[in-house]
Amino acid sequence: MSDRKTALVLSAHAADFVWRCGGAIALHQKLGYDVTVVCLSFGERGESARLWKDGKTLTEVKSIRRKEAENAAKALNVHDLQFFDLGDYPLVVDDQNKMRLVDVLRAVQPKFMLSHSKYDPYNTDHMYTSELALEVRMIAQAWGHNPGEKVLGAPQLYLFEPHQTEQMGWKPDVFLDITEVWDQKRAAIECMEGQHHLWDYYTNVAENRGNHFRRNSGGQAGGRPAKYAEGFQSVFPRTVDEL
Amino acid sequence: MSDRKTALVLSAHAADFVWRCGGAIALHQKLGYDVTVVCLSFGERGESARLWKDGKTLTEVKSIRRKEAENAAKALNVHDLQFFDLGDYPLVVDDQNKMRLVDVLRAVQPKFMLSHSKYDPYNTDHMYTSELALEVRMIAQAWGHNPGEKVLGAPQLYLFEPHQTEQMGWKPDVFLDITEVWDQKRAAIECMEGQHHLWDYYTNVAENRGNHFRRNSGGQAGGRPAKYAEGFQSVFPRTVDEL
Amino acid sequence: MSDRKTALVLSAHAADFVWRCGGAIALHQKLGYDVTVVCLSFGERGESARLWKDGKTLTEVKSIRRKEAENAAKALNVHDLQFFDLGDYPLVVDDQNKMRLVDVLRAVQPKFMLSHSKYDPYNTDHMYTSELALEVRMIAQAWGHNPGEKVLGAPQLYLFEPHQTEQMGWKPDVFLDITEVWDQKRAAIECMEGQHHLWDYYTNVAENRGNHFRRNSGGQAGGRPAKYAEGFQSVFPRTVDEL
Amino acid sequence: MSDRKTALVLSAHAADFVWRCGGAIALHQKLGYDVTVVCLSFGERGESARLWKDGKTLTEVKSIRRKEAENAAKALNVHDLQFFDLGDYPLVVDDQNKMRLVDVLRAVQPKFMLSHSKYDPYNTDHMYTSELALEVRMIAQAWGHNPGEKVLGAPQLYLFEPHQTEQMGWKPDVFLDITEVWDQKRAAIECMEGQHHLWDYYTNVAENRGNHFRRNSGGQAGGRPAKYAEGFQSVFPRTVDEL
Amino acid sequence: MSDRKTALVLSAHAADFVWRCGGAIALHQKLGYDVTVVCLSFGERGESARLWKDGKTLTEVKSIRRKEAENAAKALNVHDLQFFDLGDYPLVVDDQNKMRLVDVLRAVQPKFMLSHSKYDPYNTDHMYTSELALEVRMIAQAWGHNPGEKVLGAPQLYLFEPHQTEQMGWKPDVFLDITEVWDQKRAAIECMEGQHHLWDYYTNVAENRGNHFRRNSGGQAGGRPAKYAEGFQSVFPRTVDEL
Amino acid sequence: MSDRKTALVLSAHAADFVWRCGGAIALHQKLGYDVTVVCLSFGERGESARLWKDGKTLTEVKSIRRKEAENAAKALNVHDLQFFDLGDYPLVVDDQNKMRLVDVLRAVQPKFMLSHSKYDPYNTDHMYTSELALEVRMIAQAWGHNPGEKVLGAPQLYLFEPHQTEQMGWKPDVFLDITEVWDQKRAAIECMEGQHHLWDYYTNVAENRGNHFRRNSGGQAGGRPAKYAEGFQSVFPRTVDEL
Repeated sequence: MSDRKTALVLSAHAADFVWRCGGAIALHQKLGYDVTVVCLSFGERGESARLWKDGKTLTEVKSIRRKEAENAAKALNVHDLQFFDLGDYPLVVDDQNKMRLVDVLRAVQPKFMLSHSKYDPYNTDHMYTSELALEVRMIAQAWGHNPGEKVLGAPQLYLFEPHQTEQMGWKPDVFLDITEVWDQKRAAIECMEGQHHLWDYYTNVAENRGNHFRRNSGGQAGGRPAKYAEGFQSVFPRTVDEL
Repeated sequence: MSDRKTALVLSAHAADFVWRCGGAIALHQKLGYDVTVVCLSFGERGESARLWKDGKTLTEVKSIRRKEAENAAKALNVHDLQFFDLGDYPLVVDDQNKMRLVDVLRAVQPKFMLSHSKYDPYNTDHMYTSELALEVRMIAQAWGHNPGEKVLGAPQLYLFEPHQTEQMGWKPDVFLDITEVWDQKRAAIECMEGQHHLWDYYTNVAENRGNHFRRNSGGQAGGRPAKYAEGFQSVFPRTVDEL
Repeated sequence: MSDRKTALVLSAHAADFVWRCGGAIALHQKLGYDVTVVCLSFGERGESARLWKDGKTLTEVKSIRRKEAENAAKALNVHDLQFFDLGDYPLVVDDQNKMRLVDVLRAVQPKFMLSHSKYDPYNTDHMYTSELALEVRMIAQAWGHNPGEKVLGAPQLYLFEPHQTEQMGWKPDVFLDITEVWDQKRAAIECMEGQHHLWDYYTNVAENRGNHFRRNSGGQAGGRPAKYAEGFQSVFPRTVDEL
Repeated sequence: MSDRKTALVLSAHAADFVWRCGGAIALHQKLGYDVTVVCLSFGERGESARLWKDGKTLTEVKSIRRKEAENAAKALNVHDLQFFDLGDYPLVVDDQNKMRLVDVLRAVQPKFMLSHSKYDPYNTDHMYTSELALEVRMIAQAWGHNPGEKVLGAPQLYLFEPHQTEQMGWKPDVFLDITEVWDQKRAAIECMEGQHHLWDYYTNVAENRGNHFRRNSGGQAGGRPAKYAEGFQSVFPRTVDEL
Repeated sequence: MSDRKTALVLSAHAADFVWRCGGAIALHQKLGYDVTVVCLSFGERGESARLWKDGKTLTEVKSIRRKEAENAAKALNVHDLQFFDLGDYPLVVDDQNKMRLVDVLRAVQPKFMLSHSKYDPYNTDHMYTSELALEVRMIAQAWGHNPGEKVLGAPQLYLFEPHQTEQMGWKPDVFLDITEVWDQKRAAIECMEGQHHLWDYYTNVAENRGNHFRRNSGGQAGGRPAKYAEGFQSVFPRTVDEL
Repeated sequence: MSDRKTALVLSAHAADFVWRCGGAIALHQKLGYDVTVVCLSFGERGESARLWKDGKTLTEVKSIRRKEAENAAKALNVHDLQFFDLGDYPLVVDDQNKMRLVDVLRAVQPKFMLSHSKYDPYNTDHMYTSELALEVRMIAQAWGHNPGEKVLGAPQLYLFEPHQTEQMGWKPDVFLDITEVWDQKRAAIECMEGQHHLWDYYTNVAENRGNHFRRNSGGQAGGRPAKYAEGFQSVFPRTVDEL
């Protein structure tokens, strides 16, 4: 294990990590982190409407989605991209894959984790993944799980921005300035050829979160001139030395 | 105005700042902040039962409460302690004093503010003060309020720990390690001679929040060995460069 | 002051105490309590539509509403019925009347209080009264308010059932069996001649809360066969010797 | 009173109605409604930073803000625009102006009302206005308030979109397609010369709410191709004949 | 598939659809809808106390419950009544039946769905069914699930009224006037011979929801004189052209 | 079955019942109850860090944890202590063990149940156990589950105090005076040799809940002088004869 700081993203479908925390990934790579991204499924059935309309087969859809995610990860400079290929709509994680995920957590020893919102009536895969994140984090912390391995500390779990925030009861408590890596995030977004209709949507989101960043960092009285930002909701409280 | 960082505490009654954020005050003074504390009332009617039982007059009660607060402030190394003497049970702030408070905010230009929880069915003075904190913060940010003065930026408002947290719907999202200033906080607490029954109570609180600090900063896998801590709930999201 | 146990009802408008806690009043009178009811207004402007349609004057409306409330109070065997006559829609309580209410609280020394739900978008007088109940309770507890008087203990504040419970975010945590005083409550309800349309409504409510009583006290496996009940939401936790 | 349907917007500051419900206004005018807009203040002190920085006086600021609001109202084809000029930061509405607002409500007899979110820690004027909307609605419904006048029915109160929705706990339950009046809304927005930085922000909002409209009206399986939309949160339930 | 509009009810136990949305079913049949009702179980173990007390066997109980549900469905003019017979207390839906339910959804293509409240501490079958409704809706929307089939659009999911609404955190945002089909609903209710004790209970509910309908559609100032109504909570926002 | 009153504690891990409701257990034994405690797991993997650090094997850890729990149960005078030994981190309860738990519930016929908080992001075993408590309670109430057996009534489910109450959204509505059995609880706590760091933590909790007891039972005006207390959150409403 290297001395670099690390982070882990748990993404239900292959594209989620791009829209929802692509900026955080690119920025933390630049800050010296190794960011690992786990895609539990390719989102092949539920999030690839265009491909199915074009008559692609399941194998083709998965292959295309994998390629898109790999390209996006490259644009974001992701350290390690892992596909669990567990199927979607519904996503089901059996005991064996749950333990495989625990192994990843222990190997990575992330300083923080990123995953989905707690509630999502549009997409039960998302809320399932969020619950799973809490469960595997707990198992990885247990001294009696594979005794002798290095146990996990207490990494923060940040819930990244869902589609239609208010319907999910998601409320950000931290905004991250991603201006300096925006070009990378936009490039990653443009790798998602099957979801063209979301390119501008998430550009708008980034611009408006930039506005929130400015509003909350001093406003017209001199706030940081962030142009693009991402918002996150913390599950756990912070422990600090200075407010 | 000096170059030192600043903070402002808005306390409904004279003793609130001691129990609820005495550690934060002492620690930030040590970190180079100038901390101003405004006590809107002495808590003379509602929080001085022992003195009234002893037959003290209103003037005597206020004088004793003032002295106790001054001693506690000294122990905590408070930069500036102001008494507005507006009465309690109920506390009422008229327009003139509201503007006086805005003046203080603009003069201090705090990096962050500290005040009461949003809800408190036991003590309506507390929730009134919390609303007031939001109102004066807003006025102080207005470019058209006393044009020409330096307007306020966007300081965080931290809600400090109420008595009986769950009844107030208060949920901390940040814990502050106050171990190195604990002796000062305990000394300040012991200045509150009329509320002896709370000395151990808030010592217990500090110890247990220390436990929460440890749980959230790594747990048995190597968290910071904080012995004493204070918890706070942020009203506004943070704007950061690194998660 | 007698040795009897006491209770206090704080009702925004003259009729509220009948629909919302008439059973609790009659039952506790029977259990040996002296129940005092304070009506802050007659509900003359906002809750007397039929009378206004009949061309009554303000004086006539208030007189009729007073008479109805007196008759209902008699049916319920209310110990003391007080009218503050402060106007409604909107109800406004000035400082002098606030202190008059504190005096009542201290004179009565209620074992418990009853008032409106915390939220009511249909009727801001109701939520104003609920806030007021918390404020005067706090003042009456202060040793420094009229020193020498007997201060108030810590009576529970029960929020009685509003119209359209879910819209008010009201959730009962206690059901009271009022079967043995139902005839009194129904008689009191029938004193409200201007609100005929609510007679059956609140009979339905009482029957269905009876069903809830049965569901929560043993169900088909042997619950108490209550026919009529009232629901209440407690603001404060209970302190008990046995669960 | 004409036979046309009517609506009423209650705006704390002069510009709020433009960003938050300009599309709803223009659309309903086109649908045959007469929409009345009441601006309680010009937002002269708190929302005109650019003008103050340019050294304008209070009279000049108010005059400019009035002109901008008038121009925007014209672009939106507002039926009646009223300025109460009550001051901002903080906005205070005395009894006389409260009754004046009740008079407006009764004269207009709106089918629905539009106002601010219930909570807003950034701007206490906004939440004050939202409470006021409930209070004056209640008074206007009272048969005993100015007996003989036509009382108000039970219009829905829609809370329009605040800045930073999640911080306000605002959750839309209805999306309105404003595509056909978008040019009018954008034109109205461009009347707000002092708040240039918000033009693109609220264009982004409208585009993204269009996406939400599509997601909720059929998605890729054939939803309405709305390009621009506005979101609203209903305070009261709907009463319908068909789901 | 016919040209008629359609709706789908997902009922945990055989009788739920009668009490909770019988009026909506009958009314929409009259409005030209084809309403399909799926009963996941007969409620044979948990909701047939009377029959078990009479010494009936499991087969007899299921047969009687089926007969009652068929009779009720007939009274309501249900288009298609399906029994999945999956067992109750606890209800468990395996993968195969989940997919069977998805097939129903796709075949029916409902304009809206009806199911249980999100939370129910008295009956975990109910909240399980509500989660299931979201999951199968999501799967049926996936273009990659059985490619070539017509995918589901974005039907609203209405949560119908639970027993003890407040304990379930259920809050209706729409009331449906069922006066003209009340006789049908009452007739359906009377088919439920094993639950006699609920006949009057749900008649009361319908009457009081009628009162809520009137309160919210104009009140004494001219609301619709609905005598019976049902309440529903929408999970998703509406997308509209006119408020 | 004896005539004594009974209670049932459902504990995810072997030690939970000690910290969270040891006082309630000892007190109710003294009041004449028979209290049964079910430990679903020993907490062997996740809550025995010290033992694993000392190099113990899984068998040794479980044996030590069992011994500690037995000693604590003895100190508390537990009537019946049962170990289900189902494993932890994660705890999984299969159908067979679910039914075994239902059998226990029916055999014990508890007057009330005690279990974990509804939400716990730190420990998914805890929230799983709380859901399970609701599910088995429901099954045990079903007349058709093992017909002929005595069905369960409607016992209250009290959620005992979690670690870090606010993060769990836990809010106590009842405090129990455990002063007279405090020595027993402290003795039980001291049986937990592997979790030394929690001894003082939960002593502090008990002292501070004693303060809450006093605050809520009369305060300085004469409340009960409880020194130690425990807090509980009720899931179901109470059904009473007197408020």
